[in-house]
Amino acid sequence: MNTAPDALSRLSINQETVAQLPLPRLAEEASALGVGGVGLWREPVRRYGVEAAAGLFAEHGLAVTSLCRGGFFTAPEGPERRRALDDNRAAIGEAAALGAPVLVLVSGGLPPGERDLGAARRRVGEALAELVPYAREHGVRLGVEPLHPMFASDRCVVSTLGQALELAEPFPAEEVGVVVDTYHVWWDERTPQLLSRAGEAGRIAALQLADWTVPLPAGVLLGRGQLGDGCVDLRGLRRAAEAAGYTGPVEVELFNESLRARDGAEVLRETVERYLRYAAE
Amino acid sequence: MNTAPDALSRLSINQETVAQLPLPRLAEEASALGVGGVGLWREPVRRYGVEAAAGLFAEHGLAVTSLCRGGFFTAPEGPERRRALDDNRAAIGEAAALGAPVLVLVSGGLPPGERDLGAARRRVGEALAELVPYAREHGVRLGVEPLHPMFASDRCVVSTLGQALELAEPFPAEEVGVVVDTYHVWWDERTPQLLSRAGEAGRIAALQLADWTVPLPAGVLLGRGQLGDGCVDLRGLRRAAEAAGYTGPVEVELFNESLRARDGAEVLRETVERYLRYAAE
Repeated sequence: MNTAPDALSRLSINQETVAQLPLPRLAEEASALGVGGVGLWREPVRRYGVEAAAGLFAEHGLAVTSLCRGGFFTAPEGPERRRALDDNRAAIGEAAALGAPVLVLVSGGLPPGERDLGAARRRVGEALAELVPYAREHGVRLGVEPLHPMFASDRCVVSTLGQALELAEPFPAEEVGVVVDTYHVWWDERTPQLLSRAGEAGRIAALQLADWTVPLPAGVLLGRGQLGDGCVDLRGLRRAAEAAGYTGPVEVELFNESLRARDGAEVLRETVERYLRYAAE
Repeated sequence: MNTAPDALSRLSINQETVAQLPLPRLAEEASALGVGGVGLWREPVRRYGVEAAAGLFAEHGLAVTSLCRGGFFTAPEGPERRRALDDNRAAIGEAAALGAPVLVLVSGGLPPGERDLGAARRRVGEALAELVPYAREHGVRLGVEPLHPMFASDRCVVSTLGQALELAEPFPAEEVGVVVDTYHVWWDERTPQLLSRAGEAGRIAALQLADWTVPLPAGVLLGRGQLGDGCVDLRGLRRAAEAAGYTGPVEVELFNESLRARDGAEVLRETVERYLRYAAE
């Protein structure tokens, strides 16, 4: 591929994009393509071994750009909430061990039987307040990710970049940022302006790309589209983040059954090509 | 049922809730239950005959509270847009013939290959400007309905009550209002405040109820939950509209495969019970 080396050095591949690749294959293939980093998920990393994974990607010259995910702390005070917060502390430790600068936080949805989104969102803020000192000690930044409003009931009561910023802003920017995922925020006319506010305050902890395609599959989780297959102005949103000062990794995160059913190395190559065509300069 | 008569006189059943019932059965059953009105859809009404449908519901003492739907006018200028606007004029005529006070407008999604939501939204405003004089002449109010952001690409680029209000506000309130559907706006923390703004300006043209349930089905269109089955604060949203001055019909509109597979009269009875339990005073 005949491209400026910088274009790929900032590209990170989230491992769920090619969940069919075991970690060593992911490291080899991503490295061979000249990609700068990988975004990791806790479960496969723990199966492989956290220290072993850290060593594997370091050997291949790949940065670990994020760890997914902490969060799911919308339960009211009680044993379930305590377990969730303990698990988030474990996740912070894992991020630190991996050298991941940011732990991505997906807040969790409405607790069973509850209808009060505002109360659940306030508990997200309380969880951040409790976790921030621990994350600071471990040198890990917390990244509050808004998820598309279609996930508000069962996965993430934080639905817009504006809400994520309001949750992050009580804390220093280097300790709590926001995770901007094009799939989740593309529809919101306030997103460009909020990207400016976030970027200028140094609050963009991570930038993730996926395209929006329809029809959505049942359950809607695995409908994230390959770059260029949908209607999201990926390049425009990346530029808006960078115009506001963001210089960090650009991570492609696709959860998509049809991509997972294909040869992983081929999907990786395609993803790099699509990134260059639809998102990079 | 032992309830205040007013509770049911304001209740309207959208016919798609019980799509399995032919119009005469819908009229009989809704009338027998003491429901005040029905919301209708163009296609089944046209099959039955517009004038015949108007007579049928009038005979049964049922108001036609809304007609669904016009809209789908996001295409750029050209023959497709002209056809869409002509079709909206036909829909206005049908609403007038039915005595429906409001034609519900679903804007349409992004035209194929387009990525600019802002441009598509501006074309919605231009379509309103073109249709308003025609609707005024026919005594039909246009109701701009925001649809959940998960429909932004393929059905409705108007995703929030705030956007709908901005589109409506250049026109007199009695000519262009907004359609508030709990299913589409429940997740948005600005909704209560926007309901106040809309209600106080007399802009709420219709209030529709459905609950939010997960998992969403493939295609996500037919996932509207029976009242009480999900997590939406239906009573709270209805009260917020009324606190702002809304006194019109409250329409239950469910698109749900499992409800359509059951006996329609039973679904109607259940819907009335759920309305009283979860939404009415």
